Amino acid sequence: MRLDELDTPVPVVDLDKVDRNLRRMQDCCDSHGLKLRPHIKTHKLPQFAKAQVELGAVGITCQKIGEAEVMADAGLADILISYPIVGAPKVARLAALAARVRLTCAVDNVVALDTVAAAAALAETTIGVLVEFDSGNGRTGVVTVDQALALARDAAARPFVEFRGLMTYPSSARSAEFVAAARPVFAAAGLDIPMVSGGGTPEYLQAHTVEGVGEYRVGTYVYHDRATVGAGVAALDDCALLVHATVVSRPTDDRAIIDAGSKTLSSDRVDPALGAGHGVLLGYPDAVIVRLNEEHGVIDISRSEKKPAIGERLRIVPNHVCVVTNLHDEVVVARGDTVEGVWAVPARGKTR
Amino acid sequence: MRLDELDTPVPVVDLDKVDRNLRRMQDCCDSHGLKLRPHIKTHKLPQFAKAQVELGAVGITCQKIGEAEVMADAGLADILISYPIVGAPKVARLAALAARVRLTCAVDNVVALDTVAAAAALAETTIGVLVEFDSGNGRTGVVTVDQALALARDAAARPFVEFRGLMTYPSSARSAEFVAAARPVFAAAGLDIPMVSGGGTPEYLQAHTVEGVGEYRVGTYVYHDRATVGAGVAALDDCALLVHATVVSRPTDDRAIIDAGSKTLSSDRVDPALGAGHGVLLGYPDAVIVRLNEEHGVIDISRSEKKPAIGERLRIVPNHVCVVTNLHDEVVVARGDTVEGVWAVPARGKTR
Repeated sequence: MRLDELDTPVPVVDLDKVDRNLRRMQDCCDSHGLKLRPHIKTHKLPQFAKAQVELGAVGITCQKIGEAEVMADAGLADILISYPIVGAPKVARLAALAARVRLTCAVDNVVALDTVAAAAALAETTIGVLVEFDSGNGRTGVVTVDQALALARDAAARPFVEFRGLMTYPSSARSAEFVAAARPVFAAAGLDIPMVSGGGTPEYLQAHTVEGVGEYRVGTYVYHDRATVGAGVAALDDCALLVHATVVSRPTDDRAIIDAGSKTLSSDRVDPALGAGHGVLLGYPDAVIVRLNEEHGVIDISRSEKKPAIGERLRIVPNHVCVVTNLHDEVVVARGDTVEGVWAVPARGKTR
Repeated sequence: MRLDELDTPVPVVDLDKVDRNLRRMQDCCDSHGLKLRPHIKTHKLPQFAKAQVELGAVGITCQKIGEAEVMADAGLADILISYPIVGAPKVARLAALAARVRLTCAVDNVVALDTVAAAAALAETTIGVLVEFDSGNGRTGVVTVDQALALARDAAARPFVEFRGLMTYPSSARSAEFVAAARPVFAAAGLDIPMVSGGGTPEYLQAHTVEGVGEYRVGTYVYHDRATVGAGVAALDDCALLVHATVVSRPTDDRAIIDAGSKTLSSDRVDPALGAGHGVLLGYPDAVIVRLNEEHGVIDISRSEKKPAIGERLRIVPNHVCVVTNLHDEVVVARGDTVEGVWAVPARGKTR
């Protein structure tokens, strides 16, 4: 089947571009002596997680237990959960996971550490801990070196818990400052920092310049999107997941409606400096997807000399591809214009 | 099981509130002589679609063929697809659907009409057509009465196609003007307008004041959300789907992080006049969910006297509940604080 015979809207993954993107990142990490630990949140597919490990990744990163369970089912053996897992309802599942993979969990507080320790004790298996620190992102992560040390010492003292280092997101000059400040303080307390985990696709070309970072977590690079192109780390032609849509209405000369709305593209925006609207419409450089309802994409074609016709098929580079993946039960995979298959996305929707 | 024993994040539906919301809308329509045709896009659940019909709805509304197929499988027998269905790949599925339910499709252009007519001919079964007109929403819909008439005449002339009237969204004073202008023009052309379909939860209290509207399409009223509360047609206490989340990190005095991000709540905003941030956090009136990443909700608690603790469970009224439903494979249903069950959401993710 050819791509233009597919029903729309549909996310289409170009396998040749994925191959190229995976290889490029692995080569970059290899050349700088960084260990790559890709985040599966972008593709949510065992196929690509396995390909990443076969190319040289030391393991994978997941955000939630449910994602890690899917990947463990597929045979992935070394998993970092880079998210604070908190609460009694999660202990049994975390323990079952620890019993079948080499598991590491990020924590930034004692309640999360309690959850991890309870799971490790239940499984009678070691779970590693990374202490997350904030490099200025203003999200999770301890803020001071003293907080990091206190949590690391607490972790190291728990049965079945192993302190494996520090983690931050995204990597930045402040990451390096924090690590540089932490090393002597940890040393004085008699605690080694075995590893520092950095991350972020937009920052990956500078990843090796952040002193102390040993492992690097990246997700978006598998597909790339308008945001990573805007960050200057990919070209539009590197974008490996395109949404194919059909023009379903042309009510006026200035307006086209496509069958891809927020249920297909998500409502995520990019920095206005990177461009207006809800994705890049290939072939129509002067058109802007100005508005999304759930099933309607409203395109302003007032500045377009050529105007898309009803029934015409359009291809869109999403603003933020990770959230697009999460919306779809399946993706079509292709090489060139030929459909190679339809893959279920088993780690989709795993919010717990 | 009690609600506070559930793993989070999780969407929880209060069945008592749903019962009340469904009854209230049916009573409102009954009292004004309007036929109710609820849109299933908000709940995506056969259980509630059937309840709506049992209470008196004349049928249901869907946006895509995939949603209609799920509802037909569940026994719903009268379905309006209020969206232009365009293209050859959709003909066979539309024909199969027409063979098993009373089907009506909205069109605003000849290519969509061609698709409907091809499906009707293939099924050798009548498919009804509503001609959609624009009441100022600037999305789909013909703009002029002449366009509506041309399309209606074309529809009426096709074998197996029946012109069933006009449709618009949302209902407004301009809807009434359009219909008033259309009636004499259609009459002069010898064409009856059997029915006019209006819609919109925010507008429902005025639905009956739009002259000529016979059927009314509403979705959000089953759950309500911050947007419909903001529109003044519901109270916060009417909101029947709440997202339960857990505080997983408290990096600073001013910041709490919850395990519900854009994968759980969506990135949809409301009009800033209705309030800031990504939903209403119950019990913390001075807190604002200022930012969502996929799994992180960042809450500004700088103005909160009482501050949520790590591990504490919070309840959130979503900005836009229809897109929340679309993110989750399952919803928990409850009465009071008691879990009654977990329901799959079979019409979730049906973008085609």
